[in-house]
Amino acid sequence: MTRQNRAVVLVSGGLDSATALALAREQGRDCHTLCLDYGQRQRAELRAAERVATALGAREHRCVRLDIGGFGGSALTDTRLRVPDAGQHAAENDIPVTYVPARNTIFLSVALGLAEAIGASEVFIAINAVDYSGYPDCRPPFVEAFQRLVEVATQAGLEGRPIRIRAPLLHWSKADIIAAGTRLGVPYGDTVSCYQPDDEGRACGRCDACALRRAGFQAAGVADPTRYRPGPDEGE
Amino acid sequence: MTRQNRAVVLVSGGLDSATALALAREQGRDCHTLCLDYGQRQRAELRAAERVATALGAREHRCVRLDIGGFGGSALTDTRLRVPDAGQHAAENDIPVTYVPARNTIFLSVALGLAEAIGASEVFIAINAVDYSGYPDCRPPFVEAFQRLVEVATQAGLEGRPIRIRAPLLHWSKADIIAAGTRLGVPYGDTVSCYQPDDEGRACGRCDACALRRAGFQAAGVADPTRYRPGPDEGE
Repeated sequence: MTRQNRAVVLVSGGLDSATALALAREQGRDCHTLCLDYGQRQRAELRAAERVATALGAREHRCVRLDIGGFGGSALTDTRLRVPDAGQHAAENDIPVTYVPARNTIFLSVALGLAEAIGASEVFIAINAVDYSGYPDCRPPFVEAFQRLVEVATQAGLEGRPIRIRAPLLHWSKADIIAAGTRLGVPYGDTVSCYQPDDEGRACGRCDACALRRAGFQAAGVADPTRYRPGPDEGE
Repeated sequence: MTRQNRAVVLVSGGLDSATALALAREQGRDCHTLCLDYGQRQRAELRAAERVATALGAREHRCVRLDIGGFGGSALTDTRLRVPDAGQHAAENDIPVTYVPARNTIFLSVALGLAEAIGASEVFIAINAVDYSGYPDCRPPFVEAFQRLVEVATQAGLEGRPIRIRAPLLHWSKADIIAAGTRLGVPYGDTVSCYQPDDEGRACGRCDACALRRAGFQAAGVADPTRYRPGPDEGE
């Protein structure tokens, strides 16, 4: 593969980024996966990210530690905040407490740095504006603004060949994503979407992320391979 | 001080960011300093950053580790590349080897995350387009593009009160910076600008950063408090 085919793919261990990686691979990209360890309360998703990267043929996988967990402000990194059940932040335009401050801005910036360093021409990010949870950095204007930034911020941009930000899932429903990924052989059973999985990566089945994921498999007509942990009433 | 006065100030241990912090303090800001430990070859600048933050009255100082040093591509993090002497990258529009991929993009992104988390209304960064070393992310279009990104990327932006990116030194000469900082009592002897200081923070006197700094003190008519290490011909 030529250097022109080199891409950095942000992976989180979740369903969406696994699908984005599979799409990049299908399009012939030489994929360098990047996972950001930002102090997530749950480590299962970091292990899932590496597993999925290997399964889908990434050339190399990096996990970069970034100590922004101590910033607080999000239930995903701050153990004092409770992850809400699905629908609890029902008010329109509300930003959920699971929002990590500037997360996708930070993730894209670090991916951009890696892309520059290894001479990649693209960065793939699995943000999605359809079944998103109300995060500001999951919408088309965010992607467009970041692309404009890249054009003036980087050596490659000044040389007239800006790194391209690819968000192939931006306008897809969760069902579209799952249908495409299933066709491409994404091992969804290995992915973790839950905001509060247990140590083995089993999902709670109750949070926003679980609700979106379950509905997606139903709408796609694909059997849900998610491993759920037993609820309080179910025993083992 | 009110929350409206709260600001995140990026500090590096260098002359410029110490001056930006002093300016923010002069303007009544409640300053939360942020230093990024990205695997710099030299650690003296991290110690200088903390020292200067304390001296200039920052409310709290954070040093966040970000393992992008392993990305390579810069003489400032990659020990296999040699830091060039001043003027060695003379060709117009050349990007020097001391460029760290997407550094200011990454720094501003992390500062933005902190600003969101603590409810700060501004981020100060000491980039400078006059005496800069040819980095793409030190020019006005970069600052403008990042401000546009903030307006769509963050909770505060969606709520109509985007965090403001302040680059007070953007159009100042090094002499202007030093004159202002001297008036404000910046302890320049404690700052480290050199690309390759020794363990005690003493400067090489030969690299681009040293050359710019020395010329700045001369032009400002201020005695240079920089601690230089002895050269090979000078002995102790």
